[in-house]
This record gives sequence, structure tokens and C-alpha cells, in this order.
Amino acid sequence: MTGIPEGSREAGAGRTAAAAALARGLEGVVVAQTRLSKVDGERGELIIGGFPVERLAPQASFEEVLYLLWHDRLPTRAELDALRRRLAAERTLPAATVALLRTAAARRAPAMDALRMAVATLSLSDDHPEDGSRAANLRRASALVGRFPTIVAAYWRLLHGRDPIDPHPRLGHAANFLHMISGEEPPPEVARALETYLNTVVDHGLNASTFTARVIVSTRSDMCSALVGAIGALKGPLHGGAPGPALDMVFEIQARAASSGRALGEEAAAYTRDVLAAGGRLMGFGHRVYKVRDPRAEVLGAAAVRLFQRAGDMRLYDEVRTVEEAVLGVLHEHKPGRRLETNVEFYTALLLHGVGLDSLLFSPTFAVARAGGWTAHVLEQIGEDHLIRPSSVYVGPRARSWVPVERRSSTAPAPVPLEASTQMSAG
Amino acid sequence: MTGIPEGSREAGAGRTAAAAALARGLEGVVVAQTRLSKVDGERGELIIGGFPVERLAPQASFEEVLYLLWHDRLPTRAELDALRRRLAAERTLPAATVALLRTAAARRAPAMDALRMAVATLSLSDDHPEDGSRAANLRRASALVGRFPTIVAAYWRLLHGRDPIDPHPRLGHAANFLHMISGEEPPPEVARALETYLNTVVDHGLNASTFTARVIVSTRSDMCSALVGAIGALKGPLHGGAPGPALDMVFEIQARAASSGRALGEEAAAYTRDVLAAGGRLMGFGHRVYKVRDPRAEVLGAAAVRLFQRAGDMRLYDEVRTVEEAVLGVLHEHKPGRRLETNVEFYTALLLHGVGLDSLLFSPTFAVARAGGWTAHVLEQIGEDHLIRPSSVYVGPRARSWVPVERRSSTAPAPVPLEASTQMSAG
Repeated sequence: MTGIPEGSREAGAGRTAAAAALARGLEGVVVAQTRLSKVDGERGELIIGGFPVERLAPQASFEEVLYLLWHDRLPTRAELDALRRRLAAERTLPAATVALLRTAAARRAPAMDALRMAVATLSLSDDHPEDGSRAANLRRASALVGRFPTIVAAYWRLLHGRDPIDPHPRLGHAANFLHMISGEEPPPEVARALETYLNTVVDHGLNASTFTARVIVSTRSDMCSALVGAIGALKGPLHGGAPGPALDMVFEIQARAASSGRALGEEAAAYTRDVLAAGGRLMGFGHRVYKVRDPRAEVLGAAAVRLFQRAGDMRLYDEVRTVEEAVLGVLHEHKPGRRLETNVEFYTALLLHGVGLDSLLFSPTFAVARAGGWTAHVLEQIGEDHLIRPSSVYVGPRARSWVPVERRSSTAPAPVPLEASTQMSAG
Repeated sequence: MTGIPEGSREAGAGRTAAAAALARGLEGVVVAQTRLSKVDGERGELIIGGFPVERLAPQASFEEVLYLLWHDRLPTRAELDALRRRLAAERTLPAATVALLRTAAARRAPAMDALRMAVATLSLSDDHPEDGSRAANLRRASALVGRFPTIVAAYWRLLHGRDPIDPHPRLGHAANFLHMISGEEPPPEVARALETYLNTVVDHGLNASTFTARVIVSTRSDMCSALVGAIGALKGPLHGGAPGPALDMVFEIQARAASSGRALGEEAAAYTRDVLAAGGRLMGFGHRVYKVRDPRAEVLGAAAVRLFQRAGDMRLYDEVRTVEEAVLGVLHEHKPGRRLETNVEFYTALLLHGVGLDSLLFSPTFAVARAGGWTAHVLEQIGEDHLIRPSSVYVGPRARSWVPVERRSSTAPAPVPLEASTQMSAG
């Protein structure tokens, strides 16, 4: 989901001396210590709450993972039941939130915008905003996380002219999400597949949205504000916006193969060569952090196999694997020294499609999962209580002369385009 | 307004080796080059858009400052008029936003929460969210900045059981804000005083809210999302939340002097000694960045003199100066080596009180001003187009064993308190 283009844009010429110390993307700058997750891009490892992702994600319920992240250990049966009851009690949306979602749907607002506005209203349900105790913040965490699926499902239905469906009092987080979308209780293997997805992407080090949440709460602001900011960051295509196109590419290759009569693998290889020749980028391949195969792709791929096997239809899965192999073959041929692997977007798209989710729901479903990580990081940052405030270096003029408006010439020198302005020398 | 307590909490013992490279607060880490403002804390200088703040703030209109930050030069008369017309056209709030503010007022939501939720809805008015051109982003900037005063004024009236007042078609940004609060056209010197305040605090380097906005938009997310995140950060007491208490302290000292019969200066000195003896902190004194007097305090103090002189009542101003001198005297006596000066909060409170604003409006009014800086930084970051994504270091265990829930003991070792968890050694 973190579809960072390979290689970052390099700065142009004409930099000032100050630029030498500039950490524009903060790459490699360590801002926090965390017990929540460890991303080892060299070794292709992801640890979540002390567990390798491949051990945790397929067997834990999402509620167990939430408890693990919030309390640094797995819950007992009684603790798990208490958390499930608390989430169940929090799932229903305030009337004002539903009213706002109706307006947003009437305006055909993007789903991530609707999620951002709806979550921004959730502090209205906080009866004691001044209570900064850990117990109060844990209540806020479950109240916020509990409502993400309700918001996303309600908005999707409103967009399609249907009324929202009330949460099911007995179903868990993942199954409830599917129930509130379709109105039907999902088969256990489908709920399990979604749950494995939610667990797999629940946390991933200090990505841009998680970092946003930590910066916001580092001012001693509140958890709701932090999550609203995080949704805004996740919305950006460089962060959370790319799983849809990965599957669209597979469908496009399928359609081309159907009309050309070529074999799917052959068509995929031709498609890849065309994209590379045009200087384009393959959606679903490569990741800024992972130099080897993204461990999440492995977990989601295995979950997809189980899902499609149970459903008794392996066709799409097999086709996707065929496309993947053909694309990787051409990529390795094209850049022999470079390890370019299928990333998490590719299998996210396959798995969520298999679960029955519309591609419009992919990014909001990512947010449903990541809300678990965001709340846990916010709790961790609150414990840290340290303002995050970096510096900037000024590269503009220092002593402009004030000219009253009537004496300003309309033939003044053309304004410096903002895009180029940071590359000018200090005045 | 950035009431950072002097000195930051030091880390405890038991740090891991990895902690050596940890930049928890990003202090001194340069994340961006900017042409927007330069904060020189050693020399007590602030440059905004190429002008020393003391030259720009008292004579420019807020619209001129907006133009300066967005276009890197002052506008001609025609350009300024066009900007004023555009802001005027954008000031009215969508019905959905007003409805949400009514709900928030009925729930007595904090004003900054109401502002956050209302701004989060403003993307609903964006008819072309996919247009990423600079012209479209400039339109978004004026649409967002234009509505901040309307939201703040409407919410304040709704909180007081009154209906919102429509924006005045002819008044500028500052005067309109006061008009929408009181229903009356403010005297020119009052509008001027507010305008000077807005200009003075419009931008201030990479503070936490501005940084939040830049991180969000660095993912190629949108300007509305960035501003919503920034409001969340500004809300935190370590960032934007402290001008009210600075004036409350003066009023408290006045009340004590009235009942004790002591002179105001004597009472202020006694109050200061009491606070210091109790280990407390004086609101309105000291700043993390400025080692000498905050230049904004100077500008706001001078604006306050002009305002109270025109109003023909210097009493409050004189009393505040008396308190300031007494407090500074005791502080310098208490910490002889330390330069501890009146900060921007102190004169913000005095000036905004003089303008007639309720202290509940101080933080939202700060946001009205800073929205100008946020939008300009967002435009600058869009030009930069570089993802901001730092790293974290993992200090938790790496290979926990999965125990099914039924076999988890309720007598498991007590969970590690989250507050202490970052100080544990790596597992």
C-alpha cells in the first residue's frame, strides 16, 4: 500500500551551503523508539507486537491484535471478551456523523475524504475531553477504532443509494465490516481472510500517516485529532492510495489477452515491456523499504490461496500468479542487478477483491486496519511526551523594502515560480 | 503562543545503544528549505516573506501578507483587489458545515475541535479534487483561508445561543471576522490591531502544526487534509493553547492586589515568588526558540499601545506593563544567568482582549492567522514533492510464541506500562 516510486527526485543545481544538512524526507532519521512493529527491509522481515507477521496475522483475531498493540501482550479470554463488548458498544455512529456522510455522498465525495470528515466529528462523543489518563485514552482508542468500519460501510452504501446497516451485536470487527457493507453475515473463511489482511497491515513502523499522528499528539493534542491527520496523510497516493490500480492492471492484461488471443503470460510480458518503454511504472511491484520480497505479500498471498481454495475457484488466483511471474521475468531482464519484487499492494488487491470488496473500498479498508496502529502509536507517544518540532532553513530575502500598494508597479519582475523557489540561493 | 516549557524532559536511564542516534523531537534537524519565514532565536529576529516582522505586520493588510506568502512578492492594486474579491466570494459556509457547527455547539465542543470538524468538511466544496495544478491549489488556499473566520465567528455565536452573521461583502478579512462575531463594523483602529496580530503570527518556521501540514501533503494528499491535521496539532497546549492563561494571570494579580490593598507591582512580585516556590511556571514568559525577547512580543506590544491610546484608556495597558516588569524582575533575580523575556502569548492576550475578543477565541484566532502560513507551506511542499517519512527503532521482543487464547493465563506477568516501555532494552 505504501507505493513509493523507486528512487526519489534529486535536488537540482544551485543549492546553498545550508542544503548540505537538509534531510528533506527524513530518510533514516530515527524519531521514535517503539515496541509496536519492526520493519527490516534488508531481510524482508516484519515484526508486529513481538510476533513475526506470518505467525500473528493468519491466526489472531483483529481484536487480539488491537489488545496486543495497546497492552504489549495478548489478552486472556476475559480481557478479549471485554474488548469485543467495548467495541460492540462503540460501533454505532452518532446521528450527526451519519447526516454528514449523507451530505458527502450526495456530493460524491471521495471515500477517504468522507472518512476524514466523519472521524473528525467523533470527538463529539467524548464526554470528558480533559481526562488525559491512560484509561481514558484506551477508551478513546476503542471508540475510534470501533467506528472506522461503520463509517466506511455506511458511506459505501450511501454512495450507492442504500441506507446504512446497523452493526451486528455478535459479530467481530472484520465480520461486522462485511456485514455492514452487504447486509449478510460473511462465511467464516471470508471473514478470516479479511481479518488476516487487517492484521497484516495494522502497523508498519513510522510510515507517513503514523508519523503524522505522533507529531500531532506530541503537542499534547488529542487522539481524535491525531487520527484525522493520519487519515489525511494516508489518503495521499505516495502512501495509501495504490492497491486498486494493481488489480486493474491484471484485469487490463486479461482483457488484452482475450482480444489478442495470446496467452496471458505472453500478454503480461508484452504489457510490461510497453510500460517500461514508455518510462512508466508497474503498480504493485517494488517498495522503498523492502529490498527483498515484502513479507506482507507472502502472508496475503497465502491467505488468498486459502480463500480461493475454500471457495472452489482458483482461476483468478492462478491468472494473477501468471501475470506476476511474467511481469517479474521482464523486470529482472530489464534491470538485472535490481531486486524488484511483488509488493503488498498486489496481493492486497487480490485478497480484498476475493473478499468481495469494491476497489473503491481498498484505501478506506487500509485505514480500518491502520487505525489500530495509529491509536497504539498515539498511546506510545503520549507516554513519551516529547514535542516533535524540526527546523527549516530560510532561503528567501531578508530585508525587502515596503512599497505602498499604489506605488507597486504592475510591470514588476515576474514572480519566482514557487516550484523553483527552494532552489534559489539565500538573499 | 508556542508555550514550550523551558528545558525538555530528559530521558531516563536504561537506554539502548540505538537510542544514541535518536532524534526524538527532531530539534535542529532541517527538514525543509523555505522562502516563507526565518526565525532567528539567538538574535530575536523574525523575517516573514522577506520583511522583518516589525516592518511588515503593522502596515500590511492580511490580504497583502497572504499574497506575499503565496506569490513571493507584494500584490499590485489590481491583484490585491482580485484577492479580496475571491476571499469575499468564498467566505460563506456550506449549509452542511453550519449544521455540524450547530451540533457541536449543542454538545459544547471545544472551539478548536469545532474548527477541526468544520474545516474537514470544506473539501465538499471542491468541485475538481483531481486538479493538481498550481492555479487549483491557489483557489483551494483562498477558499480555505477565507472560511476560517466565518467558522470561528459562527461557532462562537452558536455557543452563545445566537445565529451566525453573514460575512460583510465589503469588509476585509480582519474586519469581517470582528463583524461576524459582534454584528457591528469595527472601528478602523480595532480592525488594524487585529490585522497586525494576524500578520505577526501568520508564519513562524517549521512549528509542529506547519510541519504536520507539510508531512500530510508530502504524500500527495490534499490541502484540506493538511490544514485539518495542522489544526489538530495547533490544538495541543505545547503549541497553540496558552494565550488565555497569560492574561488570566494578570487579572488574578489585579484581584489579589484589590483585596490585599498592596500596589500591583508588589503583588505581582509576590505572586511570582509564590509560583516559583511551588515549582510552577509563569504563563507568558520564556520560549524554546527565542533566547532574547520574542520580536513578535515587541510588535504586538506596540500595536497594543496604539490601540489603547486611540481608545483613550491606557489603564489595562499600564497595569499589564507593571505586572510584566515585576515578574521579569523576580525571574531575573531567581535565575540571574538566564534571559527570560515576555513571550508572544503575553502581548497576544493583551491585544486580543483589547480588540474585544473573548479568551475562548484566542486559539481559534491564532488558527485564523496561521492558516495563511499553512497554505503557503503546503504550496511550497507541493513544489518540493518529496515524501517525508522518518524511521523508528524497534525496542520490543522479536519472536514471541503464539499461545491460543484458552491457554493464556490470567496470572500472566503484569503488562509493561506503556509509559516506561520505550526505555526497555531491545529483546
